[in-house]
Amino acid sequence: MNKNNNTNFGFGTQIRKSPFFEATVRWGAQGFSVYNHMYIPRDFGDPVQNFWNLVGNAILCDVAVERQVEITGPDAARFTQLLTPRDLSNCAVGQCKYVLITNADGGILNDPVLLRLGENHFWLSLADSDVLLWAQGVAVHSGLDVQITEPDVSPLQLQGPKSGHIMKSLFGDSVADLRYYWLEEKELDGIPLIVSRTGWSSELGYEIYLRDGSRGDELWEKIMAAGADHGLAAGHTSTIRRIEGGMLSYHADMDSQTNPYELGLDRLVNLDADADFIGKAALRKISRQGVTRKQVGLEISGPPLAGPNTTFWPVLVKGVSVGKVTSAVFSPRLERNIALAMVSSTAAEPGTELSVKLANGAATATVVEKPFYDPKKNLTTGS
Amino acid sequence: MNKNNNTNFGFGTQIRKSPFFEATVRWGAQGFSVYNHMYIPRDFGDPVQNFWNLVGNAILCDVAVERQVEITGPDAARFTQLLTPRDLSNCAVGQCKYVLITNADGGILNDPVLLRLGENHFWLSLADSDVLLWAQGVAVHSGLDVQITEPDVSPLQLQGPKSGHIMKSLFGDSVADLRYYWLEEKELDGIPLIVSRTGWSSELGYEIYLRDGSRGDELWEKIMAAGADHGLAAGHTSTIRRIEGGMLSYHADMDSQTNPYELGLDRLVNLDADADFIGKAALRKISRQGVTRKQVGLEISGPPLAGPNTTFWPVLVKGVSVGKVTSAVFSPRLERNIALAMVSSTAAEPGTELSVKLANGAATATVVEKPFYDPKKNLTTGS
Repeated sequence: MNKNNNTNFGFGTQIRKSPFFEATVRWGAQGFSVYNHMYIPRDFGDPVQNFWNLVGNAILCDVAVERQVEITGPDAARFTQLLTPRDLSNCAVGQCKYVLITNADGGILNDPVLLRLGENHFWLSLADSDVLLWAQGVAVHSGLDVQITEPDVSPLQLQGPKSGHIMKSLFGDSVADLRYYWLEEKELDGIPLIVSRTGWSSELGYEIYLRDGSRGDELWEKIMAAGADHGLAAGHTSTIRRIEGGMLSYHADMDSQTNPYELGLDRLVNLDADADFIGKAALRKISRQGVTRKQVGLEISGPPLAGPNTTFWPVLVKGVSVGKVTSAVFSPRLERNIALAMVSSTAAEPGTELSVKLANGAATATVVEKPFYDPKKNLTTGS
Repeated sequence: MNKNNNTNFGFGTQIRKSPFFEATVRWGAQGFSVYNHMYIPRDFGDPVQNFWNLVGNAILCDVAVERQVEITGPDAARFTQLLTPRDLSNCAVGQCKYVLITNADGGILNDPVLLRLGENHFWLSLADSDVLLWAQGVAVHSGLDVQITEPDVSPLQLQGPKSGHIMKSLFGDSVADLRYYWLEEKELDGIPLIVSRTGWSSELGYEIYLRDGSRGDELWEKIMAAGADHGLAAGHTSTIRRIEGGMLSYHADMDSQTNPYELGLDRLVNLDADADFIGKAALRKISRQGVTRKQVGLEISGPPLAGPNTTFWPVLVKGVSVGKVTSAVFSPRLERNIALAMVSSTAAEPGTELSVKLANGAATATVVEKPFYDPKKNLTTGS
């Protein structure tokens, strides 16, 4: 992809464009990555400015790449429970849950936000893997009566402290009553939407799910117009802010070889609930035996990192490899290099001193508690 | 991704690098796309020069993005048959088959090359979708005893008329006996490999599957050295050549909403074979009812296209939409604009005159037979 040629980011039709694609180019998108077979804008100029826009005011991000897996049919609730170790028996209609999707070995296939739109109507708002194929595959011999499709749904993230004001000017004051990890059906001048108080920023924020792909441009412009008085900027999900918040990126911080316990996400696995789910036996065994590696937060010494790590950096104790840094960045707010790493359980205690092999040279590092930045506890952990 | 900064193509560790990544950068890769969650080099300068390199001599392409799904275990043969409508009962150990993977509705999830390495040992060499998840999902309730994993395997494509000479200088004269769509286990100075006479170019060609990701750089350099006297160039899969050959690109020319009959791939669906496969009932019904749209070849009039289409171009008859162009390019050899399109069955007869809505303006087009270029029939269709 050519950063200097806004008319041709791609190489054909093999990678899809979002309904907001033209709008993001108009609003300054200069570079794109690929996620779930779609282009995602990841460059609106300086990523540090994008961070300050997010934590100071608000940013609007095209996250149409968060494809939805829609599960409906008489057995939808039972089937959806089968896909996740998290107990969904207390998930009300209108509620969202951060969940893990696990395979038969307890390995993580995705970490979507689940939305319950009806008794037997669910969306999984995906990270970067084809859970549509996984779910359809599981359904083949399941004996359960479900339909599993990818609907015409494309989310935006409106994130930052001013996002509440902008939502009120779009939808009226009552939208302020929307609780953390709940959703509501909305319309905006006839554009069909779902809105939820969720996101990937650890800031106050909302996701706005467009349900008619032909109206992306219109929706984007309406939100930007409503945000003009609140300092709203076009932007992209912030690597700095999400690492500060200890939030995970699929394929970077975990993959199908990672289990929930290694990530310290025990709260998302309910072995004692009645319902069966895929991976239950394997996860019970892992829970009993304990894990040999754990995800930790690291502070890395030395000068500010020039940008996020582009390879997995080896982590060593006395010259012996004990794991790898999965995500690292310099936080301009904390004025420190912060990182997520997967290390041997023996090296995972806060205060442990480690060595990190950077792209050029080595640096010392210290294991610290996550999240790195947590101004309002209730906003920073997935519900 | 920034074309002008070879040290940092990406944004983190969320997208994987190939074992040949550093080698391709050294050999002139200037731009990358993303495929199966990995970077793939797609720009070594002028794509027309890359085409002439391919059809005149040979090119070496990093296609490590063709991830392998490995299926083993006592029921591997039975399980693999379940995944594809193609009858595998006559697939010998050592043979490859071009297959479609279909879901319960008969929709296409992928079009891999299947490699049979043993009685109960298969690889699916994937196009761009997570068939690993599909296959693991299908296995959950199948009652069959199989292991399904992604092994440490990274293919290269060595394609072009000189590829046979290069293979002989690497592996000795006996490699010339390798038949079209057959495979052999090989070593190159201790590097463990599978080689097969397959590819995505419609030229004489081979795929070389590296089975030890730590030795990618070494393997790349050995092949480039062996090819030096034969005009071998580093390159990328050629959009021009694959469209000339009528070869398909997943997500562009087909997706899960496309069935094999719409593509004219009836030969890959064996409804009368004994074995059961996923989608059999749905495909039987479609076969009986006939399809309402078909893939066709088009010649598009007017000046040479500046590059491949980056959107699906509408196709019209008398102002009424009848379908879309899925892949289009100017062939410098045929000196014509050629395209693959999915159109209404009523507009699919060779000779039909259509109108195509290009990015800027309209052009007339004519339905023609595929492939567009076919010098040696035995080399141009997947076996």
